[in-house]
Amino acid sequence: MICVFLQPMTHHDTIVALATPAGAGAIAVIRLSGDEAISIASNIFVSIHNKNLAEQTSHTVHLGNIMDGKRVIDEVLATVFKNPHSYTGEDVVEISCHGSAFIQQEIIQLCLRKGCRMATAGEFTLRAFLHGKMDLSQAEAVADLIASDSEASHQLAIQQMRGGFSSEIKELREQLLNFASLIELELDFAEEDVEFANREEFQKLISKITQVLKRLIDSFATGNVLKNGIPVAIVGEPNVGKSTLLNALLNEERAIVSHIAGTTRDTIEDEISIGGIGFRFIDTAGIRETEDVIESLGIKKTFEKIEQSQVVIILHSATDFLEAGSSVKSELKKIKERFPEKPLLLIANKIDQLSEEELARLNTLLGGVEESQFLLLSAKTGIGVEDLKTTLLDFVNTGALRNNETIVTNSRHYDALLKALEEIVKVQEGIDAGLSGDLMAIDIRQALYYFGEITGEISNDELLGNIFANFCIGK
Amino acid sequence: MICVFLQPMTHHDTIVALATPAGAGAIAVIRLSGDEAISIASNIFVSIHNKNLAEQTSHTVHLGNIMDGKRVIDEVLATVFKNPHSYTGEDVVEISCHGSAFIQQEIIQLCLRKGCRMATAGEFTLRAFLHGKMDLSQAEAVADLIASDSEASHQLAIQQMRGGFSSEIKELREQLLNFASLIELELDFAEEDVEFANREEFQKLISKITQVLKRLIDSFATGNVLKNGIPVAIVGEPNVGKSTLLNALLNEERAIVSHIAGTTRDTIEDEISIGGIGFRFIDTAGIRETEDVIESLGIKKTFEKIEQSQVVIILHSATDFLEAGSSVKSELKKIKERFPEKPLLLIANKIDQLSEEELARLNTLLGGVEESQFLLLSAKTGIGVEDLKTTLLDFVNTGALRNNETIVTNSRHYDALLKALEEIVKVQEGIDAGLSGDLMAIDIRQALYYFGEITGEISNDELLGNIFANFCIGK
Repeated sequence: MICVFLQPMTHHDTIVALATPAGAGAIAVIRLSGDEAISIASNIFVSIHNKNLAEQTSHTVHLGNIMDGKRVIDEVLATVFKNPHSYTGEDVVEISCHGSAFIQQEIIQLCLRKGCRMATAGEFTLRAFLHGKMDLSQAEAVADLIASDSEASHQLAIQQMRGGFSSEIKELREQLLNFASLIELELDFAEEDVEFANREEFQKLISKITQVLKRLIDSFATGNVLKNGIPVAIVGEPNVGKSTLLNALLNEERAIVSHIAGTTRDTIEDEISIGGIGFRFIDTAGIRETEDVIESLGIKKTFEKIEQSQVVIILHSATDFLEAGSSVKSELKKIKERFPEKPLLLIANKIDQLSEEELARLNTLLGGVEESQFLLLSAKTGIGVEDLKTTLLDFVNTGALRNNETIVTNSRHYDALLKALEEIVKVQEGIDAGLSGDLMAIDIRQALYYFGEITGEISNDELLGNIFANFCIGK
Repeated sequence: MICVFLQPMTHHDTIVALATPAGAGAIAVIRLSGDEAISIASNIFVSIHNKNLAEQTSHTVHLGNIMDGKRVIDEVLATVFKNPHSYTGEDVVEISCHGSAFIQQEIIQLCLRKGCRMATAGEFTLRAFLHGKMDLSQAEAVADLIASDSEASHQLAIQQMRGGFSSEIKELREQLLNFASLIELELDFAEEDVEFANREEFQKLISKITQVLKRLIDSFATGNVLKNGIPVAIVGEPNVGKSTLLNALLNEERAIVSHIAGTTRDTIEDEISIGGIGFRFIDTAGIRETEDVIESLGIKKTFEKIEQSQVVIILHSATDFLEAGSSVKSELKKIKERFPEKPLLLIANKIDQLSEEELARLNTLLGGVEESQFLLLSAKTGIGVEDLKTTLLDFVNTGALRNNETIVTNSRHYDALLKALEEIVKVQEGIDAGLSGDLMAIDIRQALYYFGEITGEISNDELLGNIFANFCIGK
């Protein structure tokens, strides 16, 4: 494999794009970046105080008009950022105009006529990376940050954007690189049998790296769940109050809800943020025993959905429990047999409809259930909803997040970490087997390569292309 | 009628709102305005250079983090504007954050918790008006500007926002006010029969005002058409190539098209911008003679739509003309009889399907039509489309727009101008009849009232409420 490190394409031309969401609003921001950003902006911007943009200090804002020849396009604010003190590290001008789609287009078209090029997706952030304003994993976090829709996914992205684990990786890489050089130096003096690299120190470093890599790799499962929301299957007949329950969860939170298409075509998933963690509730039918072919197809689907979930809620109305307790228990047993590892939560809904005597009987009944935790609840009146939230949050190990531990959420990073670990394991085997420096050096180099891929010290056009294609234009 | 001038509500609290369009984008801008804007922002913003926002000069930008206690919400740019040098005339802070809906909400919620109030629709612009940063007609132009979607509507809004006719009105109002005072002063010295107000000068002013008012009132028809697009009825059978024609017009322009619901429920109107002027094409059926009741209902509808249009295009295929020329002519005659004032344009489409001999015959035939202009065209190949555009633009008197003449587009202003003219006419009659000063003074005061209503020197809560309710929140 060949390591390629290059400056992809030319990045000296000046790019322009709308930085704010499309559509009409009070204001919109158009961003120019590149060597000519200030001169192009000066060309179309006439300050009301006759100031020349090019002569202004960085980080200052100026009121004026965008002029197409003698025609006024808009009264705007122009903000000047001088390289390297800008987002991209280049000269940047941000034009804050009135938020009509027509005006946005007119100004962008004017910039294009005056020598700008339309920015491609993520090109501002790509330039920030190429100019060393951030490393590659930080750049990727920018896209995650914009897409974040719960406190957890937002926290992960912010943490990553502010350095996250990439500074740790970078430091380990430097140390490993140092050893690699020493070991390679030994090769030049092979006949003299010297050891520049202290083998004891080297073993220590390899152990430390192994430990860090394993921790980061383990964090991916948590990270992915926190980023994408925790899938919770709700098993229950249509009339047991599933939507009332979801609404009850919603009402108490200033929550973000969305109805998103589920993984199977006929599923609707409701995403609700509870205590800052996103939960994806997946609706499934009950799994009562049946001879019916269509019904058993339904059961198969329910099992598939449970398979994809991290937590399973079995929802029944309280009266169901009292009247058909045994069938509920057999349903529960079946799920537990099939998914012994999944946390199950049995909920008896509509307890507001029970008499005190019935309630006492239900409690005794449920106390005898061994397969799962249980909860008494009334989605309608709100009794027990708070308990449900606490229980759900308990299922999630949010310790890592709360403790500000580094968590890997990006599958590209996860992939590179796995590969790096593979190479480090080989290095360790080499040390154990007393392998010669020249053979070990190959594995070290390979591990270094994967480290570098995460932070972008090693990159190539294709990799960068893939990463930044997922950005929106204007970022 | 009582003139009310007041500061509606308290406007010393600090308001916050998202200024950019809703949704995800690269960045979003959150705007704070009010006495506490800078102190609230300082409270949640931690500069990376340990700068205190409150100590920064106006119009400067600062990089830092928005913190909710110890939790980082986002890395942002904060721009400080100090009163009176801001949009609202108050202290303003603009926070430019990453454009996730989650982050936007988090920051706004944080500002609310720290003492801001959510801004109501148009409240930033309302404050700009109340602090004398713009007059009322300029404030109204801001909303028009954001809604503008063609060059013409945009130009009208920009012109108005930059002062437009309101400076002219303001000046005339001052002069009239001056005379009013002098005339009223005479009343105090009624027994001495003095004339402080030079009657000759006064007559000159009234003449000038009359002239200006008439010009502005006349401009409303043009202005309204330019602002809303020129309605063009296309009369033609379904198969004569209406949509091909509209597409041909579109293809040559970087035009804004939209399919908007027409004024009658069953009509689709296509809006196309030609040479910067919006044209609304209204599809109507043909009006061939018929005994059929349903058909004649169709004819009635066609007439209604023609009634609403400024230009009528009668579209036929060229072969129709050659084969059924007389029926086409009778159709044309019927329209001309009913709408003698409407410009008619007869178009023979699909001329690419004609032989040279047929084309010559068609030319002779159409040359004999007196009721309308005619055009030979092939929407499919593009022949004649350029001519059609020129012809359409000729129908519109765009002279006023091109000459930067002031044009009234706002029906509230139109209304006030009409009423002011009515009062001025009364004043003129008073002068002619040698009316006494005390009687004339009443009419003058009334005219002054209507002038003041336009620029906002006279305003009341209800009026302001109506105007700013049409704004988006954040402006």
